[in-house]
Order: sequence, then C-alpha cells, then structure tokens
Amino acid sequence: MLKNIPPILSPELLKVLCEMGHGDEIILADGNFPAESIGKDAIVIRADGHGTVELLEAILQFLPLDQYVEKPVALMKVVDGDPCKPTIWDSYKQKLNESGNDPAKIEMVERFAFYERAHHAYAIIATGESAIYANVLLKKGVVQ
Amino acid sequence: MLKNIPPILSPELLKVLCEMGHGDEIILADGNFPAESIGKDAIVIRADGHGTVELLEAILQFLPLDQYVEKPVALMKVVDGDPCKPTIWDSYKQKLNESGNDPAKIEMVERFAFYERAHHAYAIIATGESAIYANVLLKKGVVQ
Amino acid sequence: MLKNIPPILSPELLKVLCEMGHGDEIILADGNFPAESIGKDAIVIRADGHGTVELLEAILQFLPLDQYVEKPVALMKVVDGDPCKPTIWDSYKQKLNESGNDPAKIEMVERFAFYERAHHAYAIIATGESAIYANVLLKKGVVQ
Amino acid sequence: MLKNIPPILSPELLKVLCEMGHGDEIILADGNFPAESIGKDAIVIRADGHGTVELLEAILQFLPLDQYVEKPVALMKVVDGDPCKPTIWDSYKQKLNESGNDPAKIEMVERFAFYERAHHAYAIIATGESAIYANVLLKKGVVQ
Amino acid sequence: MLKNIPPILSPELLKVLCEMGHGDEIILADGNFPAESIGKDAIVIRADGHGTVELLEAILQFLPLDQYVEKPVALMKVVDGDPCKPTIWDSYKQKLNESGNDPAKIEMVERFAFYERAHHAYAIIATGESAIYANVLLKKGVVQ
Amino acid sequence: MLKNIPPILSPELLKVLCEMGHGDEIILADGNFPAESIGKDAIVIRADGHGTVELLEAILQFLPLDQYVEKPVALMKVVDGDPCKPTIWDSYKQKLNESGNDPAKIEMVERFAFYERAHHAYAIIATGESAIYANVLLKKGVVQ
Amino acid sequence: MLKNIPPILSPELLKVLCEMGHGDEIILADGNFPAESIGKDAIVIRADGHGTVELLEAILQFLPLDQYVEKPVALMKVVDGDPCKPTIWDSYKQKLNESGNDPAKIEMVERFAFYERAHHAYAIIATGESAIYANVLLKKGVVQ
Amino acid sequence: MLKNIPPILSPELLKVLCEMGHGDEIILADGNFPAESIGKDAIVIRADGHGTVELLEAILQFLPLDQYVEKPVALMKVVDGDPCKPTIWDSYKQKLNESGNDPAKIEMVERFAFYERAHHAYAIIATGESAIYANVLLKKGVVQ
Amino acid sequence: MLKNIPPILSPELLKVLCEMGHGDEIILADGNFPAESIGKDAIVIRADGHGTVELLEAILQFLPLDQYVEKPVALMKVVDGDPCKPTIWDSYKQKLNESGNDPAKIEMVERFAFYERAHHAYAIIATGESAIYANVLLKKGVVQ
Amino acid sequence: MLKNIPPILSPELLKVLCEMGHGDEIILADGNFPAESIGKDAIVIRADGHGTVELLEAILQFLPLDQYVEKPVALMKVVDGDPCKPTIWDSYKQKLNESGNDPAKIEMVERFAFYERAHHAYAIIATGESAIYANVLLKKGVVQ
Repeated sequence: MLKNIPPILSPELLKVLCEMGHGDEIILADGNFPAESIGKDAIVIRADGHGTVELLEAILQFLPLDQYVEKPVALMKVVDGDPCKPTIWDSYKQKLNESGNDPAKIEMVERFAFYERAHHAYAIIATGESAIYANVLLKKGVVQ
Repeated sequence: MLKNIPPILSPELLKVLCEMGHGDEIILADGNFPAESIGKDAIVIRADGHGTVELLEAILQFLPLDQYVEKPVALMKVVDGDPCKPTIWDSYKQKLNESGNDPAKIEMVERFAFYERAHHAYAIIATGESAIYANVLLKKGVVQ
Repeated sequence: MLKNIPPILSPELLKVLCEMGHGDEIILADGNFPAESIGKDAIVIRADGHGTVELLEAILQFLPLDQYVEKPVALMKVVDGDPCKPTIWDSYKQKLNESGNDPAKIEMVERFAFYERAHHAYAIIATGESAIYANVLLKKGVVQ
Repeated sequence: MLKNIPPILSPELLKVLCEMGHGDEIILADGNFPAESIGKDAIVIRADGHGTVELLEAILQFLPLDQYVEKPVALMKVVDGDPCKPTIWDSYKQKLNESGNDPAKIEMVERFAFYERAHHAYAIIATGESAIYANVLLKKGVVQ
Repeated sequence: MLKNIPPILSPELLKVLCEMGHGDEIILADGNFPAESIGKDAIVIRADGHGTVELLEAILQFLPLDQYVEKPVALMKVVDGDPCKPTIWDSYKQKLNESGNDPAKIEMVERFAFYERAHHAYAIIATGESAIYANVLLKKGVVQ
Repeated sequence: MLKNIPPILSPELLKVLCEMGHGDEIILADGNFPAESIGKDAIVIRADGHGTVELLEAILQFLPLDQYVEKPVALMKVVDGDPCKPTIWDSYKQKLNESGNDPAKIEMVERFAFYERAHHAYAIIATGESAIYANVLLKKGVVQ
Repeated sequence: MLKNIPPILSPELLKVLCEMGHGDEIILADGNFPAESIGKDAIVIRADGHGTVELLEAILQFLPLDQYVEKPVALMKVVDGDPCKPTIWDSYKQKLNESGNDPAKIEMVERFAFYERAHHAYAIIATGESAIYANVLLKKGVVQ
Repeated sequence: MLKNIPPILSPELLKVLCEMGHGDEIILADGNFPAESIGKDAIVIRADGHGTVELLEAILQFLPLDQYVEKPVALMKVVDGDPCKPTIWDSYKQKLNESGNDPAKIEMVERFAFYERAHHAYAIIATGESAIYANVLLKKGVVQ
Repeated sequence: MLKNIPPILSPELLKVLCEMGHGDEIILADGNFPAESIGKDAIVIRADGHGTVELLEAILQFLPLDQYVEKPVALMKVVDGDPCKPTIWDSYKQKLNESGNDPAKIEMVERFAFYERAHHAYAIIATGESAIYANVLLKKGVVQ
Repeated sequence: MLKNIPPILSPELLKVLCEMGHGDEIILADGNFPAESIGKDAIVIRADGHGTVELLEAILQFLPLDQYVEKPVALMKVVDGDPCKPTIWDSYKQKLNESGNDPAKIEMVERFAFYERAHHAYAIIATGESAIYANVLLKKGVVQ
C-alpha cells in the first residue's frame, strides 16, 4: 500500500496502468467474463471478489481517458430481446462525472464486437463483479 | 468463479489451500505486513483491497484447522506498552465459532516470533486490511 | 485436499475450473485422446488412471453449464459404420441429471469437428478412461 | 498410456521412477501429507484422488527395492498413545509379497524422523489416500 | 533404469511415448536428419550414438501402432534415380513382425512429403544411425 | 505515465514501492554503488542518468517513513580522514522537511555496515547520481 | 557507469545499441507512446523521466546512421488540421548536426504508418518526454 | 578448450554445428549484419571481434558441406552499381580448397534474397568481421 | 553429427567437455548410479543405453587429463568383503593406454568418498552401463 | 558494433562492465581457467579464441580501476618451484601504463587464494588465451 493511492490498486495493476500509453485499452471484466482465455495475449490482473465500480473510481484518479477519440469508454450492448436494464451503468456514469470525464462519451459495442476488441486489449482485470453487462473498457489518453 | 465457492477465493488461492497438507501454515497478512519480503520463500497471494475477516470466513469453509495441536490459530501479541485493543480479533473469534472451530484455540505470539514463524509459512495472503494487529495465522489440519 | 471438495479435483484443476469464464470449454479426454498434442495451446491437466464419470460428477458440483446455449455438453459422434454403442454415455446423462442439468442438452459432434473444437478448449483433462467414445466437452455458464 | 504399463503410472511418474538411481528414495504420500512443502526441493508428482495401494502395486512392477540395505521400505510409526492400528499396512505387505519382495523388510520410522527423511527424498507422490499412517517410502535398488 | 524396460529407453523418451495419444506420430530419425530444425515445434529427444533398429525394437514393446489406419508406419521413399536399396528396412520389417505388427503396413512417403509430415510429429528421436533412408515414422494406436 | 504521479517513477518502481511493507528498506544508490552485486538477492531497479534528489522527492509523495523506529533514513558516514562534506545531504534534509518528515531522523551508518544492511534491502535503485556519499536508505512505515 | 560513456546510457541500452546491425531501427518514444504494446515483439528499454533530446545526443556518439538510405531518421508528421509546430524537432536537428549527421535527412511519416513501422523496430526506448510529436526513429548504419 | 579442436570454436558453437542436420544452414555474419533481428527465430552465436576467415577454416574441419546440392555455399552478390570487389572471397575460396571442398561451388545471392534465406537459417554467427560483402552461408551435408 | 568426432558424443556433451577447465571433473556413471540426485547441482547428460567404455574412448580423444595431479582418474573401490573383481577396469586401462595416458594414474576412492566427490563434479554422464563398480571420474587437464 | 568502441567488446560484455560498481571485480580468464564452474554464481562471458591482452586494452578504455585500494589489479603468483616466467605480464603492464594506470599497482595472489577470490567476482570472461599464468583480475573504481 502507498499513501495517496487507494489500496484496491494492486502493485501489478499500478505498474500496468503506468506502462500503458496513449490509445492502449484496459478492460474491467465482470466475474463471468472469460478473462484468461480472451486475455491470452494480454496481461490479466486478478481482482477476485472486487466490484467494478470501486475499481473504476480508483483507476480514474490516475488514468486519463483518450482525449483524441470521441468515446474513450465502451460498454457491452444489451443483446437484442434481452429485457435487462443494467443499473450498474448509472454508477459508471457517476464515477466518470466525478472524475471530470464526460459520462456521455460511452460507446455501446455489440457483444461479439466487444469480445473481438477485448482480444487486443493491453490488460484485462478479472473482477468478481456479479452484475451483468458490467464489463467496461477504458482507452488511455495523453498525460498532460 | 464457481458455484458454491465464495468469489473472494481466487483461483490461485483455491489451488494453494488445496495443495497444503497437515501442519502447513498460511497467513492472512494485513495491508502493512511485509508480505513480499518475509514471504520470499513462500507463495505470496495478492488480495489487495480486501479485509481479512471476509477472507477468513471464506477460507474456513474449506480449510480444516489442525486437530492435533492445541492452538491452530495464531495472532500477533500487542507490543508491551501499546494501549491498542484490536477489536478485529472479536470478528475472528466469531468467524471461528461460526465455522465450528473453538475460538479459544488461539495462540498469542510475540511480534518478532510471529515474523520468524511467518518466514516458514507455506503461503502469505497480502490483503489490504487496515486494522492493526490484524495478521492471523492458520495451521491446516487433516481432512476427514 | 479440502473439506467439501472431492479429492479427485486436484489443486490445479480447481484453479483452472475457477479461472474459466462464461463460454470457455473444458474437455474430459479419455486415455487414448491425444491430449498433449491437441492441447498444445491449452492447459493440459493430467488425471492418469482416473475414469471420466467420477471426474464429471465432481466437476458438476462447481461448474455451471452454459445457460445461454442450447447444448452446453458435447460428445463425439460414433463414426459411420462403427457398430459401437457407448454405454458410458448413460452414466454421463445420469450425472448431468443428478446435478440438476438437463441430460438432453448434449450435442453430438462429428469426430474431426470434435478435434477441431478441442484445439480451442481452455483446458483438457487427460484421464485414464478406457471406454471408447468417452470424451466429453463442457461449456461453462454464468455463476449466479 | 502404453501397452504393458498400468495407466495409473503417469508419464511424469514413469520418467521419475526411471531416472532414479540406486539408493534414491520416493514417497507415496497420503492425502494429508504436506507433500508440496516438504517436497520443496524434491520432485512432487500429483496423483490426486488415487489410493496408495494401487500405486504401490503398479510401481513395484518396475522399481527394484534396494538389495543392499536391510529394510528398503519405511512406514511412519504410530505415535505413542495413539490406539490406531493401520490396516492399510497389511495391503502394503501383500503387494510387497506379490511382487517378490520380502514384506518383513519394513522399517518403522518415528513421525518426525520420517518427515526429516522425506525432505531428502528424490520424489514425493501426492496421492488422495484417506487412510491414516499410510505414507510409504521406497528405496530404489539395482536393476539387474 | 527400470525392471522390464530396456535401458535404451531414456526417462524422457518413456514419458513422451506415454503421453502420446491415438494418432500422434513419432519419428526415429537417422544421424543426418535435421531433427532440431524440423522438430522446432516438436519434442526432440537425443539418442546420439544409437541405431534405429535397437530403438524400434524397444519402443514396439510399449507403443501400439494405429489400428485405425491402413499404414501406421512410414519410410522415406528412395529418390528417383538413386540406386540405393536400404537394407535396414528389412530389419524394421523383422522387428514389426516380432512385435506382432504386420510388416506390410508400411507407407512409402516421398522425401519432401516426409519432411512436411515430420514438421507435425509429436516427437523426433535424434539417433546416430548411419544407414541412409533410415528414418522411420510410427503412428500411435489405441491401448486396449 | 499517469496523472498525479511524477514521470520519474517508473512502472516497476511504483510496483515495488507499493508491494513493500512495514519495515522493508529501499536504497537510492548513487552511480558508483555496486547495485547489481550487492542487490543480487534484492530487486534492482535501473534509473540510469537520474539524480537521487529528484527521485527522493517523488518517492516521498507515496512512501511513508517508518513511524516506529527512531531513524527511518540512513546515510553512509564519511570515512575517517576523508575531508569531504557531502552537500547533497542538505538537499535530502530539505526534501524530508518538505514532505512532512523530520530531517533530523537520519542515522549515520559506517561504510561497511551500510553495505551489510544494503544486502538485506528489499530493493535498490541504481541511479546515475555523481555526488559522493549520496546513497540514501529509506525504511517504509505504516500507511494510515 | 563507464568512463567516456554518458551515464544516461543504461547497461541494457548500451547492449542493445551494440547488438543492432545495419538497417535495424530503434525508436526514442515520448512518454505517451504506447511503447509496451507496440513493442510487444521488440526490446523495450525503460528510460522513465528522461527527455528524448538528451538521449539522442548520447546515442549519436556511438550509433552511426544508415549511410545507404536517403533518410535514416524519421519523425511523426503532424496530423492534418493540427496547428501544432513541434519545437523539439529543432533540438533534434541541432543534435544531428553536432554529431556530424545531415539534419536534412529526416523522413516525415504519417502517424499510422509510423506506428506500423514501430511494430518492426528492434527496440523502443520508453522515455518520459512530455513534448508532443517527439517520437524519433533512428536507422543504424555501418560501422566503418 | 579441447584437444584437436581450434579454440575459436566456442562450446555453444560446437554444440550447434553438431546438432545441425543434412540441409540445415549456418551463416557467418560480418560485424554489420543485423544478426540479432534477422536471427530472431534462429540460434545466434556471438563471436564478437573475430574475423570470418579464421572461423570458416575452423568450422570446415568438422562440418561437411551438402553433397546433394550443386552449391552448398552462398555469398551476397555485390549490389548493382557498387564498384566494390570483395577480396575476402578469395580467402574463402582458399579455405574451401584447403578443406577439400570445391571453391567453385559458391552461389551468388542477391542482397534481399540473402536476407530472406538468412531468416530460415538454423544459426547465425555474429562475428566482428569488418570486410564488406563478407557474409557467408554454409549448407550442411551428410556425415559419412 | 560431425566429421572427425564420434557420433556417441552428443552436442550437449561436446559443449560441456569444451567448457570445462583445468581441474574440473566429469563422471561417467553406470546405469544404477543416482546421477540425477547426486548431480542436482551439476550438469547431467543422459546417455541411456550406452556403455562407459565406448564413451571413455571417445572422450579421451578430446579431453586432456590433469597433468598437474598424480592421479587424474578415479574409480570406486570395491566395498570390503565384496568378492567382486570388476573386469571393466581392464578396459578402462586399455583405453587410457591407447590414448596416451598412463593407466597407472588411477586413484581408488572409497564408496562414500566417491559419492561426496561426485557432488562437486562439473558434469555427470548417466550411461546405461550394466557392469558394477563401473563409475569412472576424469579430471580435466590443460590443453597445450 | 558501435562507433568508438572496439569490436572485441561484445554487447553483453559492455553491459556487464557498465553495470559493475565501485569495488566489483572482473576476471579475464585464460583458456584453461575453469570459468564456468568457478563462475557458477557469477556472470560468465564467453570470449573463446581471444587473447587477454587485446581484451585488457579494450576494457581499460572504459573501466576505471579502483582508486581507493592500493592494488586494483591482481595476478596469479607462480607456484613455488615452477621456473616459469610469464612474459604476458609485461604486456599487461604496458597496457596499464598506456591507459594511464600505474603498472606497479599489481597484487600477486597465491593460486588457491586467487581461485577463492574468483568465486566472488562479478563476472568472468572466458578467453582462449594460451599463455600460462595469464589470468588477470580488475577491481572497478569510481567514474569521475
């Protein structure tokens, strides 16, 4: 643990956030996301038992979102016909807002397109989040 | 994640608990414990951001405590002159009780003796527990 | 070994089952299956000398089957002209039934299509099962 | 699997038995033996879920016992005061007899001396044997 | 070394033969075969100084040949125009015969097709065989 | 790079500072310190070309000094007879002061005792500092 | 550190510069460049906290630029519409000039073409340079 | 060093020459050849500071050239328009002659075709040869 | 394989013989010698199925024996009371003689002293020699 | 290769010289020195086929000798009774002199004390030097 850094950020996660560059992507994966198989060529960081909202809040203190794309955040779109309305998205928007990021800058990505994009992520955080449609992708911006 | 297993138990932690044998010891270290240096020859499992009580509860569902020693649990004794009264110990006793273990079977170990013993542990879990004197050592028993 | 977990589940197998996510596949391969070569890019877990039925029963206590596909279990179809009637399939159906899974949700896959699919499995368990046509594939579901 | 070799002998176990030389020792450890910690400097072979008797029988087909010491087999002596009478020892004697080895050539080793000796073993097989006092040590002889 | 197993079978070779499954192929390469480069993605086992006939005899005691293909053994065809008549092939046929395999079940493979197939072998044994056209490929069958 | 973290803290250094616990020590070694040989059993982090003062300032933003010892900072005492008066020590005291640490809490350690202690450090940062007697040791405290 | 070699050149960087051959390329990446992801198949050398100009100057003392191509240096072209005028380029030209290289021999490469080329670089130096459009690529020449 | 083997042949080079088979290629690269990048998938052997002629002489004592191709030696053709006349080629021819190989059996390969072929070499020796057009490729033959 | 080098010398053995220096020792261990356990800190080279005499002959072509000690060869003395008269020693003496070494320069070492010395050998060759008391130790000399 | 650096200094040697610190020692070992066994815990750099004089000259361009000890260079003393007068020492003195080092600052170390000291060296360069008593040890000084 360190002063001024939330304890939920593990040493390895800090390292990974720091070594990411402009345009690199990281995914906060929920507890059912196949993080190890989709992240075979990525860095997989275990955060078992943790929720995504708390992690998102901690990460946004240090990670700038990409200022050069229209939507540096991505969520997995609800599959057609699925009546589910993910309430966790509201928490995400609140955390974006609190950290000075525009909560409207969220891209909705079709499920399989999301998987495809995840294959190219720099890192995947395997959380224990139990909410569904809770996966969230962040594209790193420029540190100014 | 798996059915019937709390999500706070990471894949690696499950593996380690399972491969431990009779007499092997594991430490739930608080967030300030020097887990990586003392655990240089042990297996160190990161559980950053988690409290020790929640982990203890989950572990006791699967890990039998040593039935062949008098006190299979150990805590770090408060240093002489330190007025601190660790309230987290009450939570530990409650979790021991709830899991069918006798909460009286706790050995109080002097600080440096605790460190010395930790050097020989099979594994150390590096939690983010902020309470002090929160380190707790478990000695595995026989699975019957 | 652990309380409440069958001893046939090795530490590594527990870890692998736990780190699999929704949609990941695992194969219980019989003793003649080329597990090491087909599983070159997968995790191969040795379970030499064990039968597949006993393993299947133990795994289904913890591994949910995919609730989002029609048939989360797959078997290798008997090759045309082969009069063999694999009786071990009945044991599989019984174990599915006992664990609350619908034994009818089994897909029959042509031999070479099965091999192809096995190449993409997350893990292959190399058992010592001597029955033929005994390979069985499980697709992991969502933990609820 | 191979012709003429029992399937319970895994590829790695075969390799280890073969590379052992005159005087090297291997332990068939029961399911509660701390195989991974005591075997830290040894080769640990997982045989989760298997009994020691079946393994002993298979191993004795290929492994000669040391013809140059009086007692090439060792068991852990029952601790003083413990009324337990390990019946599994009878099975061991039967397997020794069936394989042409003299069942009388068994050394009884005090518990902690057994642990100490295990630290120097070439390999430890971590079985799932549930019988107590079931650990058995074999000293390899000369192949003639 | 082990009882009942020829000493020419090294520990690693035993392991590899045992972990091969139905359909996997192994090549006994002569001393001039580019075993390391063609076997870049395979397991290469050194058997420097040994002849292929002695190895073949030892291997056939444990390795069943594929009962499901017409020709589970392959040799490299003599290149057009080359008057060479490899007499070592007679020894191979004799060893096949002695081990209960039909010596007629040998496929003759054109040189470059042989190389191509060797690239996909599970293992290549680099012998010191000095005879030419001495490479021999074995396809593993089912252990019954 | 990250927001709110000085770019001189490399990803690996951040990770190491974070995984250190109460009582672990880190050394900011000058450019002539034998960091790789003395740090053989430690983690050596390269910071070639950097001065120690700038690094010290950045580290003290995150690393608490040990509140439980009298002197959590150590410097190498000037060797007897050496007229050198290291002016860089004044910069160190200023940085300690600016970060809320008492600049008086510095222990002066005899040269060879310093080397001996360095052998047990958790990490050594190999800087390019050209000032002499510039090595500085920090003992981590408790994060509150 | 060594005599006659600037301390900003780390041991590993010296090694990499030395093992590069005619035509190999190295990139001095600014602090926001995704060095770790684009350099996945390259050697990534951390130089956190350093500027590119100082590094360029040190490198040019030892690295000859390719005498066989017209433009052995490459910069990332300003994106269309971006009014930015990178002043750091003047420093680069000055350093080229001072080291006896023709500052006119600079190729301007479109942003995504630059990324593509970076994927094939032999090494990428991850600096902490904060200027934008500061990435610079060097193609090694022949040592005469 | 060994009796009857020139000391310029390093232990690793001896090993590599010995494990090469019929048809495998090795390159004696001059000091400017990009040995590490082109040899990424090959074995790269450092021979810094050595000339190619001395190495060639030593290698030809043990390495037979391919008797089954017309030209088992290859050199890089002088680029069109380049007036250079590599005198080192005469030394190569002399060494071929002295070792009983026909110096006429040299193939001249266009520069980029040479690079392409080098990508598939079994090994590349990185010498310090300063002569230009000095790279030489050898194709191993059959040991008789 | 190479010209002028016996094929029984494997690539790795050649490398090891070459990298040994003055005073380093190598053991040709018979098939029952515990080569892997005693050679835990040494380099173990497998030569399964080979005899020691043939290997000794090949090795002595390249390995000078220590000219600075009285007895650069060592054999294991027959244990007191053992009537065995190892005839293989005559073959060793003959090979020493044929290679220009004085067959009288053999030290007889007591069994456990031999084991102790073997622990410090640079390399151990695990042969398949079936003769008893066949282990032979060679101390490398100076190449002149 | 690099400009202004002799090609005999390999990339790895440059790296090692650069990462050495004040007081670290490096040995230029002659061709018969047991570099690999004595250097088991050191870094061993192969320089097969090279002489020590040429290497010494190149190294002294970059490596300062220890200004804080009386004799930063060490040679192996001629063994009592040995009439040998190593002429290579004159070349060493000349190279020391040419590089501005006092050739008188050479310590003569008894043979076994030299070996003992070599065990603690940071690195050993295994040259092919054929002169006897040619081993030379250098103690690195401070870069000013």
